[in-house]
Amino acid sequence: MTSATPSVRSHLDALPLETKAALLSGQDFWSTAPVEEAGLPSVVLTDGPHGVRRQEGDFDRIGLLQSVPATCFPPAVAVGSSWDPEVAKRIGTAVGREARALGVPVVLGPGVNIKRSPLCGRNFEYYSEDPLLTGVLGAAHVRGQQAEGVGASVKHFAANNQETQRMQVSADVDERTLREIYLPAFERIVTSAQPATVMCAYNRVNGVYASQNRWLLTEVLREQWGFEGVVVSDWGAVDDRVAALAAGLDLQMPGDHGAGNRLVVEAVRAGELDEALVDRSARRVAVLADLVTEPTAGFDVDAHHTLARELAAQCAVLLKNDGAVLPLAPGARVAVVGEFARTPRYQGGGSSHVNATRVDDALTALREALPAVSFAPGFSLDGSGDAAALRDEAVAAARDAEVTVVFAGLAESDESEGFDRTTIGLPAVQVELIRAVAAASPRTVVVLSSGGIVSLEGWHDDVDAVLAGFLLGQAGGSALADLLTGAVSPSGRLAESIPLRLEDTPSHLNFPGEQGHVRYGEGVMVGYRHYTTVDRPVRYPFGHGLGYTTVETSDLRVTATGDDSATVSVSVTNTGERTGRHVVQVYVATTAGPVRRPARELRAFAKVSLQPGESRTVELALDRRAFAYWDVREGGWVVAPGEYTVQVGASAAEVLAEETVTLAGDTVVPELTLGSSVAEWFTHPVVGARLLEGFLATMPEGAAEMHAGMLQMIGSMPMRRFAADFGAAIPPAELDRLVAVAREARAG
Amino acid sequence: MTSATPSVRSHLDALPLETKAALLSGQDFWSTAPVEEAGLPSVVLTDGPHGVRRQEGDFDRIGLLQSVPATCFPPAVAVGSSWDPEVAKRIGTAVGREARALGVPVVLGPGVNIKRSPLCGRNFEYYSEDPLLTGVLGAAHVRGQQAEGVGASVKHFAANNQETQRMQVSADVDERTLREIYLPAFERIVTSAQPATVMCAYNRVNGVYASQNRWLLTEVLREQWGFEGVVVSDWGAVDDRVAALAAGLDLQMPGDHGAGNRLVVEAVRAGELDEALVDRSARRVAVLADLVTEPTAGFDVDAHHTLARELAAQCAVLLKNDGAVLPLAPGARVAVVGEFARTPRYQGGGSSHVNATRVDDALTALREALPAVSFAPGFSLDGSGDAAALRDEAVAAARDAEVTVVFAGLAESDESEGFDRTTIGLPAVQVELIRAVAAASPRTVVVLSSGGIVSLEGWHDDVDAVLAGFLLGQAGGSALADLLTGAVSPSGRLAESIPLRLEDTPSHLNFPGEQGHVRYGEGVMVGYRHYTTVDRPVRYPFGHGLGYTTVETSDLRVTATGDDSATVSVSVTNTGERTGRHVVQVYVATTAGPVRRPARELRAFAKVSLQPGESRTVELALDRRAFAYWDVREGGWVVAPGEYTVQVGASAAEVLAEETVTLAGDTVVPELTLGSSVAEWFTHPVVGARLLEGFLATMPEGAAEMHAGMLQMIGSMPMRRFAADFGAAIPPAELDRLVAVAREARAG
Repeated sequence: MTSATPSVRSHLDALPLETKAALLSGQDFWSTAPVEEAGLPSVVLTDGPHGVRRQEGDFDRIGLLQSVPATCFPPAVAVGSSWDPEVAKRIGTAVGREARALGVPVVLGPGVNIKRSPLCGRNFEYYSEDPLLTGVLGAAHVRGQQAEGVGASVKHFAANNQETQRMQVSADVDERTLREIYLPAFERIVTSAQPATVMCAYNRVNGVYASQNRWLLTEVLREQWGFEGVVVSDWGAVDDRVAALAAGLDLQMPGDHGAGNRLVVEAVRAGELDEALVDRSARRVAVLADLVTEPTAGFDVDAHHTLARELAAQCAVLLKNDGAVLPLAPGARVAVVGEFARTPRYQGGGSSHVNATRVDDALTALREALPAVSFAPGFSLDGSGDAAALRDEAVAAARDAEVTVVFAGLAESDESEGFDRTTIGLPAVQVELIRAVAAASPRTVVVLSSGGIVSLEGWHDDVDAVLAGFLLGQAGGSALADLLTGAVSPSGRLAESIPLRLEDTPSHLNFPGEQGHVRYGEGVMVGYRHYTTVDRPVRYPFGHGLGYTTVETSDLRVTATGDDSATVSVSVTNTGERTGRHVVQVYVATTAGPVRRPARELRAFAKVSLQPGESRTVELALDRRAFAYWDVREGGWVVAPGEYTVQVGASAAEVLAEETVTLAGDTVVPELTLGSSVAEWFTHPVVGARLLEGFLATMPEGAAEMHAGMLQMIGSMPMRRFAADFGAAIPPAELDRLVAVAREARAG
Repeated sequence: MTSATPSVRSHLDALPLETKAALLSGQDFWSTAPVEEAGLPSVVLTDGPHGVRRQEGDFDRIGLLQSVPATCFPPAVAVGSSWDPEVAKRIGTAVGREARALGVPVVLGPGVNIKRSPLCGRNFEYYSEDPLLTGVLGAAHVRGQQAEGVGASVKHFAANNQETQRMQVSADVDERTLREIYLPAFERIVTSAQPATVMCAYNRVNGVYASQNRWLLTEVLREQWGFEGVVVSDWGAVDDRVAALAAGLDLQMPGDHGAGNRLVVEAVRAGELDEALVDRSARRVAVLADLVTEPTAGFDVDAHHTLARELAAQCAVLLKNDGAVLPLAPGARVAVVGEFARTPRYQGGGSSHVNATRVDDALTALREALPAVSFAPGFSLDGSGDAAALRDEAVAAARDAEVTVVFAGLAESDESEGFDRTTIGLPAVQVELIRAVAAASPRTVVVLSSGGIVSLEGWHDDVDAVLAGFLLGQAGGSALADLLTGAVSPSGRLAESIPLRLEDTPSHLNFPGEQGHVRYGEGVMVGYRHYTTVDRPVRYPFGHGLGYTTVETSDLRVTATGDDSATVSVSVTNTGERTGRHVVQVYVATTAGPVRRPARELRAFAKVSLQPGESRTVELALDRRAFAYWDVREGGWVVAPGEYTVQVGASAAEVLAEETVTLAGDTVVPELTLGSSVAEWFTHPVVGARLLEGFLATMPEGAAEMHAGMLQMIGSMPMRRFAADFGAAIPPAELDRLVAVAREARAG
């Protein structure tokens, strides 16, 4: 197969309308239509992104049917917890190589939706509750994958934060919240990594299907961010093909046997759709053909498995480690409890489900590393067996051990693409098991495997250590063993807050919505932004994570580098006795501006490796976006003049050091109209003082004294009404003149 | 003055356009324009509603200038706490009589906006956080006032729940929330008491000024609720006079020297406004002339003051009374501390400010009732004086007393119409005073005077009793003395939750909004609906209140009286030794229906007086609205089939008895279109089973097994797409036929 040359593509426009339209939807479930007269081959797109899901023969989009074997790397939930773009990039690189070997030019992913609620069934496919962390990791993945010549598809654009009613629900969310929380990861990836494709979401955004939302697909994505690739629909997301094309959706997937294309042709013929839109989208789809190459000679299955193990160990989060029970002592007598130890849960269900090349289990790995390991399953995954007998057997094993490691978590049937959870609790049988084991064992460690966070309540205080593995991919079992035995020091950090109660989560009463709508009532106050702003305690905060060594933070220096930017310098020193990776987390806290700011927001981070005794100075830049809010009135980002406290945190809840800088910020001369309020007029930086003086001079005696009280009572009255109804005696011509003065100052 | 006869009014239409238009705005600040040729006198409208604010001579709308003396009855915040429509009605009656004496045909009020946030500066003018309590009390006030021939003006319609930016801000609130929380009080009053006027709010509702919101003023208010009176603007609320008239606003206030009327005339002449709309509004305004009568010969100032005292004593809420410190023992040596004891805070600032005929202070009243009362001001209201010295003096007095009663609260400058509070804390100097006094005094009672609730944190546990008086009107001082001495047993109940922290309030992060918008992100979960649903502790819950006697609840019986209604019967017995009033609070709890229901909602209540030992059986009806939710898809109230638990509560947080009834509810056959989801199709009560059977029969082998998994993954996919993209093999004609079958069933 040869790829289309630019000259061929430039002649696409001259092809028959039907031929061009054929490019706008799949020829089948997984590939675009070829156009032989233009030299355009069919382009295969397959699911990803933590492994290639290449289906041959029968296919489906829901992970029920088998695909060709590929390495299952740690899913996004784990990568998010790595806080390390290198991890994301290396997965992207490896997936790209496997895709090349499997003849796949486009692998769908990464998913960069924000974890608005811990209940979202697809949270295992997303990185974080924070847009910066999500965007940095997603961009790294895209760069890694695309450097191998394999296109990415950043998804699901946008505000696809739940599975319930996902193909119909309208995410009702205000623009500031979209701009500050739900869009920045897409924006960062598009502007810094130019993904080959962006996949539109199934849901509606403010009433309009994402697939036909012109504001999203054209104004924001292309005009404001400069996206040049293909907008592809999520599979089955197109509702009105013509409206979608007009809105900016290029490629409809899967194919619908030409039905949509016929509608496009008819619309053009009827004069209802500009043929130039067909040409434009066809040209974009044609570019994907450049990605088509002969399959490479395969990939190194062993090396990729080893890589999967190395990366997985950088993702797990050590939440608790009382009395340094971890790492396990080399000669310790260990009881391993829990079915997940031998039947690992390592990826999520649905379209991202990879047919792993092999699967490591922790039990085998631990037995290889430690001399005395007993095992009891403790519970069954399908509910079969006698729960009491299984528990008793586990308790007996625990009683004989020095340390018991319980592998708990959620079964694949508990969470998946397609539905949301209704609880964050562990299954009751596991909670009972943990409590019983902890009562019997001298020391107890719990290892958690789950796609979404689970509650630790009811058993947290009973155990000595908790290692949250989330889903670690096919080598997760051996990676967990590496961490438990101390071969590797844990370095993951929570990418999502773990609340004390589901009821504490900010979206709780607005999730998953009702009657076709989900109100994003919490606005920008998602995750730690909410907890820190209302000072609500959580079990473990965003950013929390322990290691086997200790790191000290010192010498924080923050320097403004202009009106709207700064640099941060901070030293970190490994004061312990083991090599470890440490995450420097930089938050910015401010109350500047006319909008409610979260107590603090993550604005920069870096993961560094430190030898014992090693000290490193980390320098991070804070650009204007680190200080800006989205101003709906100005229709853009604004850095308000004021004080900004730059905080280095052990987590979102624990500030280790802080420095405050004062920024001049942006000069915004507010627009002034007759509909602007009296207060806006009297306090306007250009015309306010003059207006007030003149106003008071013309008023009857006593008016000046009433001024303060009056402003308090009717300061928000539009000037038009104030001047007309309340006898303000400001001549209309004078108001018009001042409007012009303000406009000129604003423009200048 | 003679009122216009119906025959005169029917000839209004024939008058010149300019003459009719003149009726549509005030001739000045407080009165409508007379139309001599139609025999229509000018109609005076003045502020209220807890007293008549009749201004003569210089006038203003902001309470800064003096008005004619009138009785200041307990403001709405107190009436709300009475939980007694008789209290509201008697105030309405008395205000009506005073208005007649002062020549006022329309007194503006009651204010029935919901207390969405404790910070709202005008909460003292509103009854409650609950729409039922608000509506019942408001309707009683209107009935009382209008029975005296004085028109009411129910305000502020609608969603005027804050003062910040009140003349511009858009209350962004979904329809279910409007229908269930913010509109029901208006609805109840309009449908049960036909107020002469409804006053539109200043703010926008979902982007459209209330003054020109046709949906609110015409569709909901007139077409759905049957309102026949005049819609009057809040003073200065009209932005576009022609748009407002077209939307349903009849009377613009205050007058704007004819400017608005001229615009109306021009619009009619230009063919942009139907003259019939002018005629209609003019006829409505003309009807107000019927209310104009010769002033009566005055009112009984003493009798009304006595009434104000009697009613005030039924409003105050005894929050805490450890060790029965209250009532004060007849011979107790009492120290009275706090400037509010001699300088009472008894009403709020702004347009409702009444020039009281006299004012009782608690100190004088207590000295009349008790033999040994010392006094120390403890703090000054204006911050003058030496705070430490004042405190020391108070502590000395407390040390010498058996009981110290501290009169704490908010100064008038702390809260008013026109601005919102930013804290619910008492001034720090008062908190320090209370703590110091409590440490010195054997027993300590705190009496609170404030328009909005105040936090009790930081001192609650230091004191023995707390009596929340809110604002009790001009006889509040003597009424408080009646309660403290036991002349009357307290019987008020909280009409608003008192949270532990401001940050716990459900609107906290969405109040007061920003950049012109306030998002009602908490939806229907306002006040106790939120706290009970997320199980968040509060200091004192909605409905809480103690008395000097004890009441037992027994023999709850709940009987369904149809598919969507029930009756409740419950016995209450005074088991103590004093006469007291008791509030029976009936809540309904359910999870029925497709929307998230609050944990419980107040659905009926009654206040009964009980002699010691007396037992009464209270019967209350629960109509369909007690069980219904607003269904946005059906566009109406729906009672979902299911279980409803009827609970008698000591408060919203404490259930004393409950019974569950199963209601058949409404039969709703959902609408089915090609845009309805696959799940909606397959589960449709009429066509679902047939469709599914046929679908499975036509699918290739293996499809049946995939059905469950598929429904989970793509159950929300619109049928149109499912049939087209996913090869469902359901012929379009068959779908069309089933749509018709469903439609027929729905209609039938």
